[in-house]
Amino acid sequence: MFLKYFYDKHLAQASYLIGCQATGEAAVIDPARNIEPYLLVAQEEGFSITRALETHIHADFVSGVTELARRTGAVIYHSSEGAENGGYTLDPYLPQQGLNHGDVVSVGNVKLRTLHTPGHTPEHISFELTDGAQAEQPMGVFTGDFVFVGDVGRPDLLEKAAGVKDSADKGARQMFHSLQQFKAYEDYVQIWPGHGAGSACGKALGAVPTSTVGYERRYNPAFQLTEEEEFVRFLLDGQPEPPAYFATMKRVNPSGMTPLAEVPGGVLMDLKGDSVAALAASASAMVIDTRSARDFAGGSIPGTINLPYPGPFAEWMGRLADGAVDLYMIAELNHVDEIRTILTSMGMDRIKGFFAPGVVKTATSLRSYTNSTPKEVEYEKKVKDLQILDVRYQDEWEAGHISDAIHIPLPELMEEAGRLSNDQPVAVHCASGIRSAIAASILLKHGYEVINMVGGFNRWQQEQLLTTSGSGKGVTEVS
Amino acid sequence: MFLKYFYDKHLAQASYLIGCQATGEAAVIDPARNIEPYLLVAQEEGFSITRALETHIHADFVSGVTELARRTGAVIYHSSEGAENGGYTLDPYLPQQGLNHGDVVSVGNVKLRTLHTPGHTPEHISFELTDGAQAEQPMGVFTGDFVFVGDVGRPDLLEKAAGVKDSADKGARQMFHSLQQFKAYEDYVQIWPGHGAGSACGKALGAVPTSTVGYERRYNPAFQLTEEEEFVRFLLDGQPEPPAYFATMKRVNPSGMTPLAEVPGGVLMDLKGDSVAALAASASAMVIDTRSARDFAGGSIPGTINLPYPGPFAEWMGRLADGAVDLYMIAELNHVDEIRTILTSMGMDRIKGFFAPGVVKTATSLRSYTNSTPKEVEYEKKVKDLQILDVRYQDEWEAGHISDAIHIPLPELMEEAGRLSNDQPVAVHCASGIRSAIAASILLKHGYEVINMVGGFNRWQQEQLLTTSGSGKGVTEVS
Amino acid sequence: MFLKYFYDKHLAQASYLIGCQATGEAAVIDPARNIEPYLLVAQEEGFSITRALETHIHADFVSGVTELARRTGAVIYHSSEGAENGGYTLDPYLPQQGLNHGDVVSVGNVKLRTLHTPGHTPEHISFELTDGAQAEQPMGVFTGDFVFVGDVGRPDLLEKAAGVKDSADKGARQMFHSLQQFKAYEDYVQIWPGHGAGSACGKALGAVPTSTVGYERRYNPAFQLTEEEEFVRFLLDGQPEPPAYFATMKRVNPSGMTPLAEVPGGVLMDLKGDSVAALAASASAMVIDTRSARDFAGGSIPGTINLPYPGPFAEWMGRLADGAVDLYMIAELNHVDEIRTILTSMGMDRIKGFFAPGVVKTATSLRSYTNSTPKEVEYEKKVKDLQILDVRYQDEWEAGHISDAIHIPLPELMEEAGRLSNDQPVAVHCASGIRSAIAASILLKHGYEVINMVGGFNRWQQEQLLTTSGSGKGVTEVS
Amino acid sequence: MFLKYFYDKHLAQASYLIGCQATGEAAVIDPARNIEPYLLVAQEEGFSITRALETHIHADFVSGVTELARRTGAVIYHSSEGAENGGYTLDPYLPQQGLNHGDVVSVGNVKLRTLHTPGHTPEHISFELTDGAQAEQPMGVFTGDFVFVGDVGRPDLLEKAAGVKDSADKGARQMFHSLQQFKAYEDYVQIWPGHGAGSACGKALGAVPTSTVGYERRYNPAFQLTEEEEFVRFLLDGQPEPPAYFATMKRVNPSGMTPLAEVPGGVLMDLKGDSVAALAASASAMVIDTRSARDFAGGSIPGTINLPYPGPFAEWMGRLADGAVDLYMIAELNHVDEIRTILTSMGMDRIKGFFAPGVVKTATSLRSYTNSTPKEVEYEKKVKDLQILDVRYQDEWEAGHISDAIHIPLPELMEEAGRLSNDQPVAVHCASGIRSAIAASILLKHGYEVINMVGGFNRWQQEQLLTTSGSGKGVTEVS
Repeated sequence: MFLKYFYDKHLAQASYLIGCQATGEAAVIDPARNIEPYLLVAQEEGFSITRALETHIHADFVSGVTELARRTGAVIYHSSEGAENGGYTLDPYLPQQGLNHGDVVSVGNVKLRTLHTPGHTPEHISFELTDGAQAEQPMGVFTGDFVFVGDVGRPDLLEKAAGVKDSADKGARQMFHSLQQFKAYEDYVQIWPGHGAGSACGKALGAVPTSTVGYERRYNPAFQLTEEEEFVRFLLDGQPEPPAYFATMKRVNPSGMTPLAEVPGGVLMDLKGDSVAALAASASAMVIDTRSARDFAGGSIPGTINLPYPGPFAEWMGRLADGAVDLYMIAELNHVDEIRTILTSMGMDRIKGFFAPGVVKTATSLRSYTNSTPKEVEYEKKVKDLQILDVRYQDEWEAGHISDAIHIPLPELMEEAGRLSNDQPVAVHCASGIRSAIAASILLKHGYEVINMVGGFNRWQQEQLLTTSGSGKGVTEVS
Repeated sequence: MFLKYFYDKHLAQASYLIGCQATGEAAVIDPARNIEPYLLVAQEEGFSITRALETHIHADFVSGVTELARRTGAVIYHSSEGAENGGYTLDPYLPQQGLNHGDVVSVGNVKLRTLHTPGHTPEHISFELTDGAQAEQPMGVFTGDFVFVGDVGRPDLLEKAAGVKDSADKGARQMFHSLQQFKAYEDYVQIWPGHGAGSACGKALGAVPTSTVGYERRYNPAFQLTEEEEFVRFLLDGQPEPPAYFATMKRVNPSGMTPLAEVPGGVLMDLKGDSVAALAASASAMVIDTRSARDFAGGSIPGTINLPYPGPFAEWMGRLADGAVDLYMIAELNHVDEIRTILTSMGMDRIKGFFAPGVVKTATSLRSYTNSTPKEVEYEKKVKDLQILDVRYQDEWEAGHISDAIHIPLPELMEEAGRLSNDQPVAVHCASGIRSAIAASILLKHGYEVINMVGGFNRWQQEQLLTTSGSGKGVTEVS
Repeated sequence: MFLKYFYDKHLAQASYLIGCQATGEAAVIDPARNIEPYLLVAQEEGFSITRALETHIHADFVSGVTELARRTGAVIYHSSEGAENGGYTLDPYLPQQGLNHGDVVSVGNVKLRTLHTPGHTPEHISFELTDGAQAEQPMGVFTGDFVFVGDVGRPDLLEKAAGVKDSADKGARQMFHSLQQFKAYEDYVQIWPGHGAGSACGKALGAVPTSTVGYERRYNPAFQLTEEEEFVRFLLDGQPEPPAYFATMKRVNPSGMTPLAEVPGGVLMDLKGDSVAALAASASAMVIDTRSARDFAGGSIPGTINLPYPGPFAEWMGRLADGAVDLYMIAELNHVDEIRTILTSMGMDRIKGFFAPGVVKTATSLRSYTNSTPKEVEYEKKVKDLQILDVRYQDEWEAGHISDAIHIPLPELMEEAGRLSNDQPVAVHCASGIRSAIAASILLKHGYEVINMVGGFNRWQQEQLLTTSGSGKGVTEVS
Repeated sequence: MFLKYFYDKHLAQASYLIGCQATGEAAVIDPARNIEPYLLVAQEEGFSITRALETHIHADFVSGVTELARRTGAVIYHSSEGAENGGYTLDPYLPQQGLNHGDVVSVGNVKLRTLHTPGHTPEHISFELTDGAQAEQPMGVFTGDFVFVGDVGRPDLLEKAAGVKDSADKGARQMFHSLQQFKAYEDYVQIWPGHGAGSACGKALGAVPTSTVGYERRYNPAFQLTEEEEFVRFLLDGQPEPPAYFATMKRVNPSGMTPLAEVPGGVLMDLKGDSVAALAASASAMVIDTRSARDFAGGSIPGTINLPYPGPFAEWMGRLADGAVDLYMIAELNHVDEIRTILTSMGMDRIKGFFAPGVVKTATSLRSYTNSTPKEVEYEKKVKDLQILDVRYQDEWEAGHISDAIHIPLPELMEEAGRLSNDQPVAVHCASGIRSAIAASILLKHGYEVINMVGGFNRWQQEQLLTTSGSGKGVTEVS
């Protein structure tokens, strides 16, 4: 048996290719839309991919099962469980098969037994692998978004991202029962999860690729709670806000997205800066500047949004961008291919063009903002009126904030920036400075004079401690 | 002034970027559809491309003027001369301007004066360049398909590829007069032509990129003929058959082709060999195997056509492929990008998929043909009946051929293969063995048993001379 | 904690980077000589590599610990156990520390506890990992060449490759005791081994990257044997012949090899084929032709050896090539970088030049051999005398062979080819046809007329069964 | 005949491959040390490179003739003229032949006739090309550093860079006579020169790749002067200072430099910032930071020099770097290959390592400098003492400068920085801001507090005009 782990670090998404050397067959579990890595490994190792398996309807990436079916002839296997909530409606011409609890899919000598493990979603299934060539007991389980290393899948996405009422509580209870069932596995069984650290499909995922039932039994907090109500409270508490594009994913994945064979990926362009500004001003387009925050601060084309690549690009595209507009990117040319892959992996197919960073200098007027330390901001605030804008999340705000700050979480800023006053500069901060630089670009787009408070709330707090002997003056602590 | 020469070796097509360092403006003359090379040089050198000039309606490649206009904002300049034959009908939203004889386009300090030089086509113009910063006299002329190094443009394409009746003779006469006018230039003036050796836009182009009026005056055969009728006879004689795709180019270039931003370029696929065979059997698809002729001979998927890359790929795609079918390619993965560029440069946009060469081995049954020397073929012919098929061009056939051979020029073989008998193997030859390998793949597709005569007519003739003391037995010499 | 698995598929070698996000420190376990993959991941993830750990003195690849120390400043940790057999003698200027059983190396919050696990080698240590940030019990063990998935390390390399007398038996006994100790681990503990399927450091390694103590306890044959003598017999039986370069590795790794910063990697060359033949004839050089066996058979430069890339290249370079000669490669240009990495990973630093495959056609005379089926060989053998050469390993030969075949295992053929008669063609075979193609090139180099029996012994045996009703005529079965 | 132009834009160096399709032979004129581009074109076009011709002993790049001879077997042809000044002393094992005026080298049907054209150097020869297949008169002349587009070669390098006394005046007179002789060519003859715009081998080279005798006769200033003394004055006037590395080139090129096959090209490293600072402080190493001037200003590792890539990198490496120290580069990883090629092209072979830009942030203390406008500098100067440092060339200084500025041309700054006072900040400027940014990094290395005057003297002068109504206060105009 052959097993290979694939990891998309931008989306923190894991997939697996398993193959049987005896028959040359292979299967991919939870493939990403960019299936080339699987094809290349299959070719190198001499496998034909004959099966594409999916644990559940993904919310955070475009599933690659239809790509695999179209481009390799693989049969798609997906859940037939929990169908009352709406199931798969793939193109009937694609070879496909629904799976119920207990169904076995064979890949040569390798057996994949289906387990219905609802919780993250009602239809969620897992695949227990037994290497039939040498063993009678399972080697491990592909757990998808059911069990992660150090965490379990969040049950609230369907409610928050797809608007299915009351599904969060119901999912949490299903998760409790799925987990009790799962605990029956022996300690040595491996866990091969669908996500790693940084995924928004859970709240505390680890950066170790795989684990074991025994280890999670000992150290995964979700395995410690044996009382349902307590488990439900624990599970629903502190889940991060789902990114905006999750809703689109939930909509397109059941039926399959446009084949990549029909998606042009954007061309290199060389318009003048003012034409780029005109694009950026259009309601039907979005121009993302992927240069560093430092470069953007020093001069940017009016209307462009700053999402540095690499860095917070993928995460904030998912939270801020709208798949329903044309996308243009200012990017280093050697980043183009990878940016294209990230965008199509998130279903953002309307990629129209790429501009080299030099385009910025060709605009007749540029916008810029100032980077100032908290101390400098405080000084400025004394000599002229400033608005302090805090763009952190609700829970961060509640744990303490600058006393007279205005609070608009970054995901809402594009819509809500109008609440600020036009008469005073806006000094914006987040926790450490990454989100506030993005916010600064949004504020520039809305026409504000902007100061980015470098180091963010963390540094502000440190400076407060130093200058006020820890009195916490100006900090509102919320119990 | 800055001048840079670009050459697409696959289509033997030349284009030029000229820039004025004083103003930062640049223009491209006769851009190819793949405009990235111009964008990259402009960025490196600090130019903005503001003008896209075209000498005539091209028959052999998709013009890049609309790409440049859309992706850089450049203004398109094209001929307004000879409009009675139908002129340009570009999208009116594109910035554009017609040019008449004598009109001057400025690129900073560089002046491009329009010359009406009909002959290759009625609307054909050339651009005389004067570097205004330092000189009052021209430095050179961008001659498009008017004057080449060692040749002049052929006047018969409109008639042969676009079906405009009697235009060949008329064009030849126009070419004579354009040339007399051109001879007025002083010797030192440089000639920057639109094509190099191997282009089907002339019959004897040289492989030196540029020349001078004085040198061509001395050595270009077309410059030697001062009598119109003789010139016309000379010019119309021996022009190669235009490739099939020329007709499409003539149709799409006046109005501009689909923007590349809307053209997906084909994805990597990994279907089983039998599914590839099914695609190859479909009337709406064509599967090209770009492996070497040796590899193809040893085993190929039924229905696939062998056009080795690199090698005769681009030329024979142009002669054999139909832009109106879906294209699939069996190709080394590191050839994919270049093949995609070649195909879109020829307007073949329906590229659907690429297969790695390993796909061939996954078919349950393969086809193969035998490579045999002329002597072996002759021996075979004695023991069992063989058909000898000659796929060379008409003029080669007329200059001498094997006495009982059947003649079907390769460009017609796809349609005419049915004329052969199904009862005997076909021994196919060309002049040296390149075309016959392609023909062998077409014959296999039609179900024949095939022998490829290696070394072709050239080797056959040599062997005849050796064995028959030069008696030429079996050779039909046509005076 | 962060953990990433690296795998060199050519040498079937695994290494691991572990990092502590809290402190930004990282360590690499058993790094390969090509350390760029670790540097790139560390940069992407924001780690500094501060430790380089080695489980034992490797026999099958150049250790990268000295590269890491020189190029990142990392401290080298290696075994101080079993020193009576000769230990490490690294450049004293490199930061380094010896480890004894029980010693703990900290990487931020991650603890690596040293276990002395002799058997594969006397100094072999393993590293038990505990993620101090969240757990008190170990998550897994980096087992190096002690425990593999489905196998354990072979104890006989020191004797066979480095000539340490009686060390095989001693090692097998140590392995037995190390294993008894290791069994004390709980089932859930992960096993992160140093090799995967295809490595010559064991005999039955699986192609699943990691396992658990519980799974190996159930299915690894070595874990089943509880009686020492039986275990020793089992372990020493059937170990493959170690490749020739293992001896060099064993010699250079204790002291560290030349830094890659001082190793030029070979240049692109374009000599004529006859000059390449002259190089190939030189005693101080070796010219490897990495084209496919089919292409090589059709025509090759005299004196060149055929090791197709990809394919059996890495394995047979290790068995046939001599680090003490200059190496020249005929290779596709897009394979050059990877071939260079493979060679330096195996300590073959005298890479002088690369030739594109086209060089073959420039030789004035080429050599070729014939591919014939077993049936064709048998027929030939009847009409003229043929020598049948079997190049399989001793155990394959003993399990059955063609009755009048001569036996020279492929690794010995370069030296022993002289035993064959010059008067008859040599029909060479292996099991399936891969090794015999390599052997054919060696035989050509020695001047023989060669026939490669395609399909090898496997096909020959099948055909025998068909034609002789399973009488096994001609097969010598050795009990 | 086939002719292809190659251009190294970093060194503004042109070379040419000519081939004869009839015989398959090719020659390269003035090859660069990086011969791969020639090899690739030769392979694509089916040529064997059999000749390597050199016009003269180059001062500005490492000649590739010995690389070609070693790696293709080509015969080297070089000048035997002017030998009293010391000629070639190539390794006698290399195939080579000296050429005298009138000697003809044949490349198939193409004839290259040698012309002795001293002036730039005493041994300088040119090659007149006649395409024997079709013409009796020459098509063009490869003029090396004799005639450029718009300029002629400078005659003073030997004196300034190699210390040959009185050779500048002698060379200028030889150039005069060579030019008179050259004028005998007919107008139409093409000129294929050895350099383009930006080369330090002349003073006014154009950015058009090729020209003609007739055009240069009309517009090249050097062709207008018919009186020897006037010509000599004209030619010696205003020649730029030769870069430091020219001296090394003049020394190594006559005998041939180390084969690239023996030159390791530097490895990727990941030391901590403080270790990089230690390297930068060493007398035997130089650490170049190739990031943008803006990034460097914001924070740099102590002791590193800022030469942004792309940009002024190649030029200032040549002027500031010493081939006699180990070189380390802080560079984007996708720039590594090109930087390596530039350095070895200039004979800087001691490339030891590359660091990714992220290394900067790992230093425990960084240095930075301030960018200020001229107005801000003036204001600063009033409130605290500042030294104004002008790093422009002598001729720029003489044409006008800020009244109390100190003048140290940038090429001398590394040696002469000690002349500045340690007690005051240094405000440094050049003409436009490119050289002053480099100077700022050198000043930081010497421990000064630095202000970079953005926009340089140009902007300073503009601001003066605005604020002082053109009185030119503070500007010293030197007649």
